[in-house]
Amino acid sequence: MTTSYETTDRTVPTRARERAAYDRETVHAILDEGYLCHLGFIRDGAPVVLPTLYARVGERLYVHGSTGSRPLRGAADPGLAVCLTVTHLDALVLARSAFHHSMNYRSVVVHGTAYQVTEPAERLEALDALVNQVVPGRADDSRRANARELAATSVIRLELLEVSAKLRTGGPNDEPEDAGLPYWTGIVPVDRTYGAPVPADDLDPAIDLPAYLA
Amino acid sequence: MTTSYETTDRTVPTRARERAAYDRETVHAILDEGYLCHLGFIRDGAPVVLPTLYARVGERLYVHGSTGSRPLRGAADPGLAVCLTVTHLDALVLARSAFHHSMNYRSVVVHGTAYQVTEPAERLEALDALVNQVVPGRADDSRRANARELAATSVIRLELLEVSAKLRTGGPNDEPEDAGLPYWTGIVPVDRTYGAPVPADDLDPAIDLPAYLA
Repeated sequence: MTTSYETTDRTVPTRARERAAYDRETVHAILDEGYLCHLGFIRDGAPVVLPTLYARVGERLYVHGSTGSRPLRGAADPGLAVCLTVTHLDALVLARSAFHHSMNYRSVVVHGTAYQVTEPAERLEALDALVNQVVPGRADDSRRANARELAATSVIRLELLEVSAKLRTGGPNDEPEDAGLPYWTGIVPVDRTYGAPVPADDLDPAIDLPAYLA
Repeated sequence: MTTSYETTDRTVPTRARERAAYDRETVHAILDEGYLCHLGFIRDGAPVVLPTLYARVGERLYVHGSTGSRPLRGAADPGLAVCLTVTHLDALVLARSAFHHSMNYRSVVVHGTAYQVTEPAERLEALDALVNQVVPGRADDSRRANARELAATSVIRLELLEVSAKLRTGGPNDEPEDAGLPYWTGIVPVDRTYGAPVPADDLDPAIDLPAYLA
């Protein structure tokens, strides 16, 4: 396997090309840090973008949902054209000029066709991966889906073939002639943070907080 | 103006309808809490989803970008069909069963046609709103765009007409028969947090951190 994804017309941006990356290591790292994506598809000729969970297993992404959900029904043969985007916001970038205000971020955009996963072993692996993508180790510490739940769950697969990452880092890029303007300039770091776990009302008090949540 | 957005076929979900909301107050609050959206559109017959900033001004959303960017060029007459989605993640929901794992979130999905804003006063208002959506008060404390920068900037407008919010709150919804299973259950709060502002290397030390960043 090559170390980078091959570029295509739609994975090369028309501008800020220096922010684009195609190496698998960068793409995988961005994907592995997250679990929430925005999935785009076409319904009745119009674009639709929905937030949903994803998991990466090697060079495949999985998304799941109810068998009643419209995008997942659409992924039956011959597959559904999708665009799956993951974005991590790292900082607000405040330049002296409004024009040079920006964001530091890392994003991955995957174009491709999503297919229903029908093979039982792959479905089970994908469902475990979806739980573990959010909380590593959780799949083994929960009741796995029973036959009724499996029948109600669709899983779709998207191969990592046409993929790009985009990254902005660093400080503001003001125009040299703006250096003397009397405005504060710099960045404000942004992060996703987690609060202390809150047990459900009916949790047996004998059950300790698992190590993977501590 | 009515207090709620009229529902349409595509704003009523096929499932979990109890999570959907259409009142303007709820929709506006979700939009006003954020500034990063995922914008979907169709290019060469395929869906594309890109992260970008937005601002709300009344019943309009604005998105901006380079005049060279493909989606913004596409929004010239007769307009560009888009779906603009904003998602706030509030908690991971860990049920005893993998099937009932979920997320607490608040999202807004806007369907519609985006148009280029050409009227100069509206463009200026939108650009100020885009800066202030991220950091309220910042537009007045930065150098506004000059003629060259304005010529390089496209602004598109999306009316809030076909809009829905979706919200999940609360704890896990396990099956009653799973109550005795030996797995920790509850929620893990998630939030977007901001670090201490980091001045640019060339910031004049006489310039204090502005109150809107303190």
